[in-house]
Amino acid sequence: MQTPERGLVEILEDALVVVAEDGLIAEIVTADDPRHEGVEAEARAAGRLEVLGEGRYLLPGFVDLHIHAPQWPQLGKALHLPLEDWLQQYTFPLEARYADLAFANAAYRSLVDALLANGTTTAVYYATVHLEATKALADICQAKGQRALIGKVVMDDPALSPDFYRDLSTDQAIADTAAFIDYANGLAGNGTRLVYPTITPRFIPTCTDAGLKALGDLAAATGAHVQTHCSESDWEHGFVLERTGRTDTRALEAFGLMTRRTVLAHANFICDDDMDAIHACGAGVAHCPLSNHYFSNAVFPLRRALEKGVHVGLGTDISGGHDASIFSNIRHAVASSRALADGVDASLPADSRGRPGSAVDFTEAFWLATAGGGIVLDLPIGLLAPGYFFDAMVIDTHAADSDLVVWPELDGLDDVFQRIVYSSGRQNVRKVWVAGRAVVDKG
Amino acid sequence: MQTPERGLVEILEDALVVVAEDGLIAEIVTADDPRHEGVEAEARAAGRLEVLGEGRYLLPGFVDLHIHAPQWPQLGKALHLPLEDWLQQYTFPLEARYADLAFANAAYRSLVDALLANGTTTAVYYATVHLEATKALADICQAKGQRALIGKVVMDDPALSPDFYRDLSTDQAIADTAAFIDYANGLAGNGTRLVYPTITPRFIPTCTDAGLKALGDLAAATGAHVQTHCSESDWEHGFVLERTGRTDTRALEAFGLMTRRTVLAHANFICDDDMDAIHACGAGVAHCPLSNHYFSNAVFPLRRALEKGVHVGLGTDISGGHDASIFSNIRHAVASSRALADGVDASLPADSRGRPGSAVDFTEAFWLATAGGGIVLDLPIGLLAPGYFFDAMVIDTHAADSDLVVWPELDGLDDVFQRIVYSSGRQNVRKVWVAGRAVVDKG
Ligand SMILES: [Zn+2]
Ligand SMILES: [Zn+2]
Repeated sequence: MQTPERGLVEILEDALVVVAEDGLIAEIVTADDPRHEGVEAEARAAGRLEVLGEGRYLLPGFVDLHIHAPQWPQLGKALHLPLEDWLQQYTFPLEARYADLAFANAAYRSLVDALLANGTTTAVYYATVHLEATKALADICQAKGQRALIGKVVMDDPALSPDFYRDLSTDQAIADTAAFIDYANGLAGNGTRLVYPTITPRFIPTCTDAGLKALGDLAAATGAHVQTHCSESDWEHGFVLERTGRTDTRALEAFGLMTRRTVLAHANFICDDDMDAIHACGAGVAHCPLSNHYFSNAVFPLRRALEKGVHVGLGTDISGGHDASIFSNIRHAVASSRALADGVDASLPADSRGRPGSAVDFTEAFWLATAGGGIVLDLPIGLLAPGYFFDAMVIDTHAADSDLVVWPELDGLDDVFQRIVYSSGRQNVRKVWVAGRAVVDKG
Repeated sequence: MQTPERGLVEILEDALVVVAEDGLIAEIVTADDPRHEGVEAEARAAGRLEVLGEGRYLLPGFVDLHIHAPQWPQLGKALHLPLEDWLQQYTFPLEARYADLAFANAAYRSLVDALLANGTTTAVYYATVHLEATKALADICQAKGQRALIGKVVMDDPALSPDFYRDLSTDQAIADTAAFIDYANGLAGNGTRLVYPTITPRFIPTCTDAGLKALGDLAAATGAHVQTHCSESDWEHGFVLERTGRTDTRALEAFGLMTRRTVLAHANFICDDDMDAIHACGAGVAHCPLSNHYFSNAVFPLRRALEKGVHVGLGTDISGGHDASIFSNIRHAVASSRALADGVDASLPADSRGRPGSAVDFTEAFWLATAGGGIVLDLPIGLLAPGYFFDAMVIDTHAADSDLVVWPELDGLDDVFQRIVYSSGRQNVRKVWVAGRAVVDKG
């Protein structure tokens, strides 16, 4: 079950997904293919046939485009506080702890296990400013088998970064970023590459112009991915406008940080001109619908961006978003798009309350979380199709202690897909593969 | 862990909750009470001591104020359709099936099991127009041990009710309602009363004036609870205004349907005068934050209603809301209140985007889901306190396959409570009691 195009659901019954040694899907043999019987028999004879079983469905794994990995130990905490208190009293002190490698290893192991168990096969991670802890996260992803884009965070401007948690100098920040790129590129050895180093200025406010420019040069020189926050809130949007005289998007472009492999988190306040700029360079947006309600003062204009041809995928924004499940964030993307379409304030007349035409449905939101995320990252993931990595999960509609209900006399396969999207939790994710390797198997 | 007042968290360590034979809490013996040791020893000797164990916490059970019980088999289905299609193609045909008692029994058993497993100890149910199936739901709640307010639905106006699913006449609708009240009142026999019959006009549009007036008279004569929809959407609000010349609230009042035991579902479009009317008679609102995004065109002005002294609790609105978990709906209540406060449309200036001061936090939303719901229903539930029913659940923070993370070196008990509210799923609900009887025990 998958969405090969936005809004298009494809459900194949009794198809065989043939996975090659390199973790890529070699072919998909449909039930009506004359070779079906032969291919199945051959795989069975070789002991390589895996049968889903009754009530179980294969879906592409999820792509989570925005995760603050070090914030995992505070998931669901301190969210009632204003942003400034949340950052200064909780988030920055917590991130500073990752100078301690033992703490970092424990936290990152817990996080990667949890995300894989939720079906997140590709994760885009902010780490911390610490080079060693960032390497540890890369090691853990490679060892546990999660596809991961990882960045050492750059915060080289002492003006807006706390004394206890920042880069010691711009030069050091750039050198550490380059060192991490080398480390991550060497990590796979002769095996399957899972970790992609990612250039990660936290956001313009915590970085110097010199640092941002140097990171842009590094992006050009290495072709590495880039991630940063863009026009997240009224405050951030206004701050960058004031400091640089440009919108966040245009400022990032001027620093050389807008590439085909750039992921812009949030982007709630981008204007039409920003969308054009993002579209022109092929960068993408990590839409984080849940954290929009906590830290963004507005809902990302998702439909508008999609209509402009901007690449968009979904992110949890752990821990600004309190929910690690992409299933849950798909549902939030639908709900918040409807809130934007209809408006929220009942005291206004209906015709001036919302932005009609802004809603997306569950098939579009599922696409964002899979194929859409793959397009943002310029990687062959998010679809079960030849040439794509076999990053996939099995959903068990009969899982214990789950609210996922299928009523056979009432439901066609389209209904089953909709119920899976609307009602699955972590407990329904039974088995997960990344690049053909089983990384979760709940037995 | 509980919220005795809105916004006030109370966490008692090592307290003993003494439950009497009648299912009521006799007393709570705190750790520093000189009688603590004696009471504990006595209970242990009598084999009546239940110890929570490490990482487990006792919370009051949830009160779900708005559930369409017959819609359980379509949870998470057809939500991408316009209301009219959702009703005519899915919901009314499904509800009509409950003429079949075997179908009704299977669906209702599945529903009550699921809600209890989610920690919902009190459920306010719309059944269907069918008397026998409504009795079946009452039997199931009594047998499985869920506290339940249940109503045979009245749809006696042929103009807006489909031919295949409505009351055959106004007289029959009233007679069946009266018969169900008698049936439910007799159900407990000499045991603990769990089922409360509830007068249930679906909403003004599907009921005749004569029917509504007769139901109002029945409410006055029996003192039974009342539930109905009120000003849910632009369409409903406008329809009632047109037909009766009054707001939904004032029209219900004129029919005698606004009582201290009335639950108004949604109420998104009530004005200040409506709030005054609701407050004056002591009726309450079932705020259904998730379904607001699907069928209401606006967010309920929760904070405003609370400031006016209106009683408010939470509802899932199954299946207009796709999530059976009250934990999840608590989070939606927080998120949607923030969306109302900040606004959603980034193209508007910040100072005209939202309704500042509308946000509630997780402690207030938890209160709505427990003590607030109890006040709406005029029942001693939603708190762990002497004189209240022992309706409670144990949350296991170490449950398998859960994203609820507690980090002992980082978390105080207040943090643990916040994490429980933000991250619990059904898998964390380990044991549930209603009126002192264990109704769920996951071992
Ligand atoms: Zn972020
Ligand atoms: Zn309803």
